[in-house]
This record gives sequence, C-alpha cells and structure tokens, in this order.
Amino acid sequence: MTTALPDVTIGVDFGTLSGRALVVAVDDGRELGSAVHEYTHAVVERALPGGRVLPADWALQIPQDWRDVLRFAIPRALEAAGVRPQQVVGIATDFTACTVLPTTADGTPLCELPAFTDRPHAYPKLWRHHAAQPEADLIVSRAQESDQGWLARYGGRISSEWQYAKALQTLREDPAAYEAADRWIEAADWIVWELTGEENRNLCTAGYKGIHQDGAYPHREFLASLDPGFADFTAKLDHPLSPLGAPAGKLTAVAAALTGLPEGTVVAVGNVDAHVTSAAAQALDPGHMLAIMGTSTCHIMNSDVLAEVPGMCGVVRDGVVPGLWGYEAGQSGVGDILAWAVRTAAPHDYAVEARRRGISLHELLTEKAAAQPVGGHGLLALDWHSGNRSVLVDHHLSGLIVGLTLDTRPEDVYRALVEATAYGTRTIIEAFERSGVPVAEFTAAGGLLRNPFLMQTYSDVLNRPVNLLVSEQGPALGAAIHAAVAAGAYPDIRAASAAMGRLQRRAYTPDPARAAAYERLYAEYRTLHDHFGRGGNDVMHRLRALRDQA
Amino acid sequence: MTTALPDVTIGVDFGTLSGRALVVAVDDGRELGSAVHEYTHAVVERALPGGRVLPADWALQIPQDWRDVLRFAIPRALEAAGVRPQQVVGIATDFTACTVLPTTADGTPLCELPAFTDRPHAYPKLWRHHAAQPEADLIVSRAQESDQGWLARYGGRISSEWQYAKALQTLREDPAAYEAADRWIEAADWIVWELTGEENRNLCTAGYKGIHQDGAYPHREFLASLDPGFADFTAKLDHPLSPLGAPAGKLTAVAAALTGLPEGTVVAVGNVDAHVTSAAAQALDPGHMLAIMGTSTCHIMNSDVLAEVPGMCGVVRDGVVPGLWGYEAGQSGVGDILAWAVRTAAPHDYAVEARRRGISLHELLTEKAAAQPVGGHGLLALDWHSGNRSVLVDHHLSGLIVGLTLDTRPEDVYRALVEATAYGTRTIIEAFERSGVPVAEFTAAGGLLRNPFLMQTYSDVLNRPVNLLVSEQGPALGAAIHAAVAAGAYPDIRAASAAMGRLQRRAYTPDPARAAAYERLYAEYRTLHDHFGRGGNDVMHRLRALRDQA
Repeated sequence: MTTALPDVTIGVDFGTLSGRALVVAVDDGRELGSAVHEYTHAVVERALPGGRVLPADWALQIPQDWRDVLRFAIPRALEAAGVRPQQVVGIATDFTACTVLPTTADGTPLCELPAFTDRPHAYPKLWRHHAAQPEADLIVSRAQESDQGWLARYGGRISSEWQYAKALQTLREDPAAYEAADRWIEAADWIVWELTGEENRNLCTAGYKGIHQDGAYPHREFLASLDPGFADFTAKLDHPLSPLGAPAGKLTAVAAALTGLPEGTVVAVGNVDAHVTSAAAQALDPGHMLAIMGTSTCHIMNSDVLAEVPGMCGVVRDGVVPGLWGYEAGQSGVGDILAWAVRTAAPHDYAVEARRRGISLHELLTEKAAAQPVGGHGLLALDWHSGNRSVLVDHHLSGLIVGLTLDTRPEDVYRALVEATAYGTRTIIEAFERSGVPVAEFTAAGGLLRNPFLMQTYSDVLNRPVNLLVSEQGPALGAAIHAAVAAGAYPDIRAASAAMGRLQRRAYTPDPARAAAYERLYAEYRTLHDHFGRGGNDVMHRLRALRDQA
Repeated sequence: MTTALPDVTIGVDFGTLSGRALVVAVDDGRELGSAVHEYTHAVVERALPGGRVLPADWALQIPQDWRDVLRFAIPRALEAAGVRPQQVVGIATDFTACTVLPTTADGTPLCELPAFTDRPHAYPKLWRHHAAQPEADLIVSRAQESDQGWLARYGGRISSEWQYAKALQTLREDPAAYEAADRWIEAADWIVWELTGEENRNLCTAGYKGIHQDGAYPHREFLASLDPGFADFTAKLDHPLSPLGAPAGKLTAVAAALTGLPEGTVVAVGNVDAHVTSAAAQALDPGHMLAIMGTSTCHIMNSDVLAEVPGMCGVVRDGVVPGLWGYEAGQSGVGDILAWAVRTAAPHDYAVEARRRGISLHELLTEKAAAQPVGGHGLLALDWHSGNRSVLVDHHLSGLIVGLTLDTRPEDVYRALVEATAYGTRTIIEAFERSGVPVAEFTAAGGLLRNPFLMQTYSDVLNRPVNLLVSEQGPALGAAIHAAVAAGAYPDIRAASAAMGRLQRRAYTPDPARAAAYERLYAEYRTLHDHFGRGGNDVMHRLRALRDQA
C-alpha cells in the first residue's frame, strides 16, 4: 500500500541578519520543517569586507550571503521536514525592504565586479541605511514645491530608506557607480532573478518603496529638478510589474543545483516580509489590520477605500492583494524600547533574581509589572525613543517619561513603556478611522506575542479583541502561501490564505474596567503627543540639535 | 610649665535619625572631637513602641532618644576631643524643624504620661509627618478668604509640616490629648528646657514654623474660623521669644549629671539645623545664600530687604541673625533623586564594575557622566520626584525626563538629574532676584559637597562661583558658634562666625563655554517648568490622582 506524498511549497524569508526556509503543506498550511542560515557578513556598517571604512549611518549587505540562504537553508529545511524535493510544487521569497542594489543588465551585483569591490555605493543598501537623509529631504521639498500628487500617498514624506533617496545619494557621491548600474533593483526582486534567470518586478515594492502610483513613476522633469543627472533614473527601474501571487518564472538549472530543488519549479514574484505576512495571518479582508510586532511594529491593512491618512507610510493599489488598497503604517520603536529598559533600568538585584529563577529580565519585569492596577505606577511615557514613524513621521522626536517619584520602580517604567507603545498603536488606528478608513479587526504577529501581559495590555488599551497569528514564522509561511498560489494550487491569495493561514481569533479581549481606566490615560498620552509632536514645544528637536553639536 | 587649656563650646545637632555632639575651640572654631548617638527608635512610622499601628504619612519620634544624645554623645565627644568638662564655656543645640510636641506645664512630654503612652497624638510629630495636609489646606484657604497679611510671608502656603497644622490635626483627631497639652513646643525649644529647667522659645522656629510675624501669632478670630475649639490655641505657644545667640539659661544639676558638664554652664536658645549652619558657613551678610545640600536642599539667606518672594518657605525678621530678614527656600528632592537613579537605573554590569573597583555606584555614574560635553546626552529632566517646594510649592508634581533614545545610558540619566537639581536652584535664585532680593554670593554645605562634578555643574549652571562650607558638621559647628556668643566670648553671631566659621571662597568657578551651553538648556527647563508646574498641562496631578485611586 502506498500513500501519496503531500504537495509542499517553500517560503524563504530574508531578514536583516539571517534567512529562513520553511516547508509547508499545500493542503492545510502545516509547517513541516525549517532551517535558518545566518548571513556571514550580517550588516556591513563599519567597513567593507576589503577594509574600506564606511561613514556614519551606512548599512550594507553582501549578495553572496543571500545566495547562501538558498544554498544551505533550503536543503536543510527539506531534510528537517522529511520531504523529498519532488514534492515541492512552488517556491516564494520575501525580503526586507527597501533593500536595494545596483546591478548590470544581466543582474550581476555591481559590487561583484572587480572594479567596484572597494566602492561602497556598489553594494546593496540595507533598509536601515540612513545616510540618504539629505536626498530624502530634497525629494520631499521639491515634491511639495511642484505639488506632486503621489506625495500624499506616503503620508507627505518620502523616507531616506527608499529607492529614490538611496539612488540619488549614489549619483551624488559616486557618479561612476551610478552610471555603471544598468538596473536599480529591490533585493526582493533580485533574489527572484537569481532563481529564475529573468528580471521580474513586483507591484508591492514598486509601490511602497519606488513611488510607483497610478501606473507611473515620478516623471522626468521632477527627477531633473533633484539633479540634472537624475532625470533618466526611472530607466534603471522600468520593467512590467507583476501582481503578487503570480508566477515569476521557473527555477533555472543553476538555481536547481544550488537549492537541490527540481529545475522548473515554479517561483513566485517577490514580496516584502511584512506585507506577505498578511496572508499567513488571514488578515486580507478590508479593515483587518495586521501588526507585526518586534523591535519595531509594522501595520499592514487592506481597504476598499482610498484615503490620505496622516502619517501612513504608504498606500498602494494591489500592494498586498490584488483588488484592494494596501496601507502600511509603523511604529519605529516597540520591542527595542523594552530592550532599552532592560539594558538601562534593571538593577543588580533584579538581575540576580532573574538568574536565580532562570527567567529573563523581560520576564521578571513583566511579572512584577503585570500585577499592578491600571494607573498604579502613576507614569506616562511617549514611545519615541527612536522617533515616531506614524502618525507624526518625525525621526528626531525622543522618548519622555512623566510622573516619576522616589517610589518609581523599574517594573513601573517597563509597564509604562509597554503601555506607551499600545497608545502609539491606538493613535495609528484612530488616524485611519478619522480618515475614513475603518479598522474592523486587529491581529498581532511577531516576537512580542510571547509576552501575554503585553498582548492583554494592547487589547485593554485598544479596547478591542486582539487576534494572533499563531506561527513563529509568519513571513516564511506567508511566502509559502504565495508559492501555492503561483503554483496554481489555489485560485488566489485569499483562497490560499483561508486554507493555509493560522489565525487565532479573539485570543485576548479587553477587560472593561481596565479599558475604561486606559481611556483616561490615553487622553493624557494624546495631549503629550500633540504638545511635543506637533510644535507645542519643540524641545525634543532642540535637545537633539544640542546633542549633535556637542 | 603649664599651658592654659583652651575654652571650648559644644554644639549638639539633633537630626532625623541621630544626634551629634561637636566640641569646638572658641578662639578659631577648630573641631576638636565629636560623637554620634543613633536614636533607638529612629523614626516611628508604622506603630507606636507599645504596638499601636499608625496611619499612612505619620512620622513620630521618642523624646527619650533625644535625651540619650545628651547622655551619650556629649561625654563621648569630650573624650574624643581630649577636653575636660571645665573647659566648656557654653552649649547650644539645633534641631530638625518643625518637629513639635505636646507637653504638660512643666515640660513633660505628653507621651510620657501613662494615660497617653498609647495615643499617637501625644508623641512628638517629626518634621516629615505629612498627615496634617487637610488641616494645612484649611489654614491656607481660610487665610486667603480672610486676607491674612502673614500668608505672603510664607510664599502663600502654610505647610502641613508646621506647628498650626499639626496642632489642628491633634485637636480634630484626639481632643483629649489636645486639651491635656498645656504647651505645644518645638523640639528645638523643648531640648533647651531639658537642659536649663526653664521654658524658653526662640525667634527662629516661632517665625518659620509658628506663623509669628510682626510680633504676633494669628489672631483668635482666625483660629476660631478653623475650628471653634482652636480659638485659644496660641495660649499653648505664648511665651517671650528669645533672640538667636542669647543665653537661654544655665545647665541644671540634673542636666549636668546627665551630660557630665558642670552645673551652671551657659545654654544658648534653640535653633534650627539649617538656619544655624549659616553661622558655620560665614554666610550671614545680606545676599549671601547658603544651600545645605543633602537628600533635599534648604536655602537660607539674610537680606535687609523685605519682599514677598514667590514660593519661598518663609521670611522672618531676626530669623537667622538679629537685625536682618532671614529667608528660607527649598528643593524637596536633590540627593534622594540621585539615590533613586542609583537604585533603579544602574544595571547589573555597572554594579559589578563598581564593586570590582571598590567605588560606589554614585562614584561610577559620576565618573561616566562627568566626561560628557554639556548637552551631549540630549536629555532634560524636571527634578520633582518628591514634588516642588520652591518656587511652585506643589508636592503633587512629579519627575519628568525628555530626550530619551535607545542610546541613552544610565550615566546620561544621572547627569541629567544632577543638572535638573542645579536648574531648580537657579530657579530659586532668580525668583529672589526678580522680587528685588539680590543674591550676591552662593555657598554650598552638606553631604553633596563630596561630589566635585556635581558642585562644578552647579557653578556652571548658576554661572557664578560656588563657595563651600568646609566642615562636615555644619549644623553642630553653627550651634557651637551660637554657644560661644551666648557665653559672651564674642559680642554677636557675626563676630563669632567670622572667627570660628569655615568658608572656602570660590572653590568652584564657572567655565564660560559650559555656562553658555547651560543657558540654552536652562531656558528649556524653564519652559517645561512653567508648562507642567503652572497649569499648562496638569497631567502630573491627574496621574497622581489616578495612582491614588488605583
């Protein structure tokens, strides 16, 4: 008697420090096995591999590290899953974004040409490369002056992290590298090129990171106003854009040899780690917000309404699933603010207690904080330790704590910071709703799900149920779902998501008494938010300027 | 050959947890020896010695603990000094204030009568007994309503720590104890009564803590408006007031036996620990401000000008030395805010480093903080962790820190708090000067002198030289100076202070570049100070109310 081996897909998630391959059953999305490969060079921030020192705020990566994920993680994931390569009906990838690189016409990264190995601008610029701020500022001011319609689609700001700012920095600082780059391409698309041997570009990164709106990139005159040499930049991007979930091509012989998968396996179009997670979370319906909560939080939501929501990161037609407007918003600091509290405000005796009990300082502080009544610590914080992405879009804001007394304990500060990040989420939700974009459901994903107290606090502060994506590998699962669509196993992303996604509804529901108490604290948060964030007192900017001078 | 043994005086300083006796040479003030006696019962906060539990905010003391200072510390100080009792020409005391107790007509503390040993209101109420706030609020509102002229002499506020509020609380909560109290007397005067056998009352506590202004206590009608039973309260206080530095009487045989000093030794009138330190610091001239900097800071300054300075604690004619107006102001938290930072914001690895190097966490944080340029940490704090005494007189304010980033380190917070307390001092100085009371010199005394970085920061922030009282026993030295005056060794306090005091002029002088940078930060501090302290945003009050409800 023989049993038919199940069809599987592979989702490969390229993160900041490593890549992960996940093998998923096509019928129900169960996760069969996975493997992680850490990038050899991690993030290149101080010097190129050859020794050339980088300026401040730079962050590069090495393409070979990405290829190594294909080479090592995919075979190991298959082995861990006990799955034969022949069972794999499709593969899809997702990537950090905007991580973008210059290549030749055949897709060779410029940094792999001998003439360019010691030139920083020939390397992929990681999403968190922040050295193109002057260029971003110039793009915004020129767009305001010439009243570019697309600016409002990005909450009025173009980030220094995105394609145009990073390319303009390259032109200004290394014109030869700029000239030599036939193509300027998201890593999300480059990795698909590596797999299929053909250039392919996805709608998602083109929209969110490439200022592609209503079928067009910014026009030539606008680009010339930034720099005459930049007028034809769009030629380095131009290519038909593929809808998400579509097949981009098939695995080449070279890529098959690299991965151990059969030549000709279907490869889906590229995608972004946050956006692809919506499929894993079954958070695709209009008004279903997904919050991917880790060191920072990214909010993804579809809507059938197009609106200009203040401070959103972007809205893109078909940007998450075909047929809807995909919105993105974000909080620049969440888990990393809590990590900061652990690093700086957990005294010696707490460290001793945590070690004795075999728990982390996060767990200890959470335990001590969780027992308190709402408002019991008397504190209120602004969660702007790394600035504010949505809705203020001001990276030069900073954190604030008020209500400190001689009785204030580390767990009080920790709890106030947890609450502040929840207030930040609520501020974003309210910005959507006030702009006419209803938020009907809220689902959380990411590393912070491990903290039930934090999740309950979000439910109480938001005064709405919190659903959970019950996979620790949301992006890779989302990619595997896209792979199933590309392979034809499902008619579209929604159908695949319904079958393969992992949503636990109403995992947390608000406690009415706590929610009522948080109403009052949230009102106080909003008052501080507007005072320090909207010009009532620009002390945060002045303190930062003084610091930078000093 | 015989050498004449030098004349000495003894200053006895009664603090919150212990009393100290200091033996001082009359000719030049050199400190010959001292001894400390810790109070057996310290501060009685939770329960009476017999077991009766106390409500929140209570703080009592035990008179026998004070007698024990006379009994143990004086003989040991003489022994440490190598001085014979016959060399002692005078003794003077200083006390915390307002620490006040009910006694019988012969000075017996009510709590020492068997019928009253289990009644909390029969015990001395320590300065930091804070349970009479409702009574203080009533006194202020009635005084405002009836336009009492004395209110402005106290910055518009009567503290819950003072004589009238504590007495009114006694009347309301234990009328029998109130009735049984023939006398209501400052511990500063009671201890002199113990030494001389005769009641004596000093001008200083009567003025600063007893609402004695322009030769009179508050009148009968006003007291009746607080409570009909309170109309005759002043009878429990009434007694001629003695000028500071005058002899109160001579040591009785009983007190001589207790202390080992000769019967008939001159005893000076009582005084307050902060005020008496001015003599030790040679800070008696008009416009010479003395800041006694410890867990909190008390500012004492004489002036020939009478003015209503916003938020001062009090102004009293002859209150520090005869012939001048003595001003008192204060910061409710200074050293204790830094102790809070050490307690809550010094992580494990800092504790390990401090221990390895054999230094305190204060020293380690100071060392790490001191190297920074002004403004380098990007932070600004409000030093209100235990409220604001001067100039806002609002104990329900709280601390605030703004400018926090993921790079903010514990030493940054520590430095910002040091700076905030310096801004607080500058705010007080400017309040005096804007009210027409010039501040010509600034002298620091107290435990915080051990931190040179802190002292230099004060000089830079104040942009003026900082003198130091170079004695670690300022109050006891000041008392010994008063004893020398009472004994007739000098014509007045100023002459004795000039000979026996210990002032190091210009120990710290401002660095022009740092002072200029602090101008900008101080302007930011003032903006936050006024916004959160003067009604721009009453969030601190609301957070405290929420906390108290929770």
